[in-house]
Amino acid sequence: MPVNRQFVLDSRPAGHVAPSNFRLVETPIPTPGAGQALVRHHYLSLDPYMRGRLNDSKSYAKPQQVGAVMGGGAVGEIVASNNPRFKPGDKVVGMGGWQEYSLSDGSGLNVVDATRIPIQAYLGPVGMPGVTAWYGLNKIIAPKKGETIVVSAATGAVGSVVGQLAKIAGAKTVGIAGGPDKCAYAREELGYDLCVDHKSPDFVAELKAALPDGVDGLFENVGGVPFATCMSRLNTFARIAVCGLIASYEGAPTGLDNVGTLLITRSKIEGFIVSDHLALWPQALKELAGHVAEKRIRYRETIAQGLEKTPEAFIDMLKGRNFGKQLVKLI
Amino acid sequence: MPVNRQFVLDSRPAGHVAPSNFRLVETPIPTPGAGQALVRHHYLSLDPYMRGRLNDSKSYAKPQQVGAVMGGGAVGEIVASNNPRFKPGDKVVGMGGWQEYSLSDGSGLNVVDATRIPIQAYLGPVGMPGVTAWYGLNKIIAPKKGETIVVSAATGAVGSVVGQLAKIAGAKTVGIAGGPDKCAYAREELGYDLCVDHKSPDFVAELKAALPDGVDGLFENVGGVPFATCMSRLNTFARIAVCGLIASYEGAPTGLDNVGTLLITRSKIEGFIVSDHLALWPQALKELAGHVAEKRIRYRETIAQGLEKTPEAFIDMLKGRNFGKQLVKLI
Repeated sequence: MPVNRQFVLDSRPAGHVAPSNFRLVETPIPTPGAGQALVRHHYLSLDPYMRGRLNDSKSYAKPQQVGAVMGGGAVGEIVASNNPRFKPGDKVVGMGGWQEYSLSDGSGLNVVDATRIPIQAYLGPVGMPGVTAWYGLNKIIAPKKGETIVVSAATGAVGSVVGQLAKIAGAKTVGIAGGPDKCAYAREELGYDLCVDHKSPDFVAELKAALPDGVDGLFENVGGVPFATCMSRLNTFARIAVCGLIASYEGAPTGLDNVGTLLITRSKIEGFIVSDHLALWPQALKELAGHVAEKRIRYRETIAQGLEKTPEAFIDMLKGRNFGKQLVKLI
Repeated sequence: MPVNRQFVLDSRPAGHVAPSNFRLVETPIPTPGAGQALVRHHYLSLDPYMRGRLNDSKSYAKPQQVGAVMGGGAVGEIVASNNPRFKPGDKVVGMGGWQEYSLSDGSGLNVVDATRIPIQAYLGPVGMPGVTAWYGLNKIIAPKKGETIVVSAATGAVGSVVGQLAKIAGAKTVGIAGGPDKCAYAREELGYDLCVDHKSPDFVAELKAALPDGVDGLFENVGGVPFATCMSRLNTFARIAVCGLIASYEGAPTGLDNVGTLLITRSKIEGFIVSDHLALWPQALKELAGHVAEKRIRYRETIAQGLEKTPEAFIDMLKGRNFGKQLVKLI
């Protein structure tokens, strides 16, 4: 009997995530019922937000249930359908989770055009990470020409799009990334004016030196020392979009030493989650698809091969070992 | 010769402000030159922002110069004028400073109608504090019917207007004030649904108990423990307007323990200064004047008698010993 391999959450991590928190199981490939479609997954998406879902505490995402298949985005192909919106061969993106096949009643499942754009880009710059970048940059930071916009995790799935959209908007872009390779890529391929290596022993001084005109906008993906350093360099009317705080997901919380900074500079900090703004996705995706198809937005992927590599690839991503969008390729 | 008594800043405070930081001087009453008007002050305004100006550091207001007459709002009457906008007998509001008379070239000086509204209200609910309340509440918090809006320094010149405007907007209002008298006044006169005494030994538990539905909006005037407690009770999409942090002006900075709270709740914190939004003042003042004239907005004043009491009244206000708007009555 054909088998669907799946990863379920076996236990919640205490601190750092371990491979043993996940368990590989095999179940029969399901048969679609009335209104359902069966998707064969080509790529799985691995994203920082998944770390929050492993905790059994209040967060923006509902906790992942122990014993259930790990949730997450996936792209693939319809192999059988009792839903009029889908026919076999259609390429689709949805929330299929960490498995080789998924059943869907069609909710949250959308057909994509994989002829102009590679299918896995719908998990990256033309998917949730891209819309995240688009929303936080355009709706919270709203960069003006000549302003200085700082992006942490500058080469990541979200940050890489933020930096390029900010550049298109005429801003000066300063990236923060881990290691000389990522920094070189940020400057040379993603068009950042400057990129500062947060692994450098002189990071704080180097970041300050990269901000001679202060900070007008900060797209925050990381938290910790880079965040605090940027907060010390805010210009008046600065806007900080808090998208993620990956440095704090398994460590000390990121604090703000002095709220008075916001008063003196008349600045705002706003947290956001892209799934709160579904009405804007079509507009954002259309713009992003155009930028990607015409190479105004470039991106990079780290691709793990085979479902069995998923937990390891997820852990590597949390540690910043990925370079660009972290994917798992299944076929 | 007739004399103008003035207070100049004699030295910058090291920590707490002392009366000796100010020096009373006497100068001749000036004669208006071309285009100038001479104002005899009736009331001086004392406001928390003045504390920031005493430091020689970057703040939203330019530092007060040592040796110069202390700046500040004042209302009074034109006694001589070479400016066509003013004639003797006109009641005016402007930035006359801590003195009995001021010369003005007309910039920032406006004639007011003191027939419907007492003249000193133009230093309070129909002046800078009122517009501050109006801007932070309407433009940052934007309360919706049934939401819970928390106001610190709930009976102060700004907070009292915030609470009443939020109530007019249909919100549930929770005030924070110092002492049972202020809390009773907040509930009975200002219409707060609840008011919590920050001097109570059980303050944190009492504040939490007063927020069974969490916090949708926070108008922050104080900082410190009340701020941290509210931050622990944020609802999704909460809005925090940071207007002042008086608890930190002479003490430890107010921090935010966990920026992740903003992400989990998708909330924003925004600092603002009312002088950045001069274009909105006429609309705000018109609305506020209507509310005050028709008693929808009530207010209370603490009035020190005589210029010589100004430093002491200022220090008392910084310590929260005032009740409502702190004024100095000169004549």
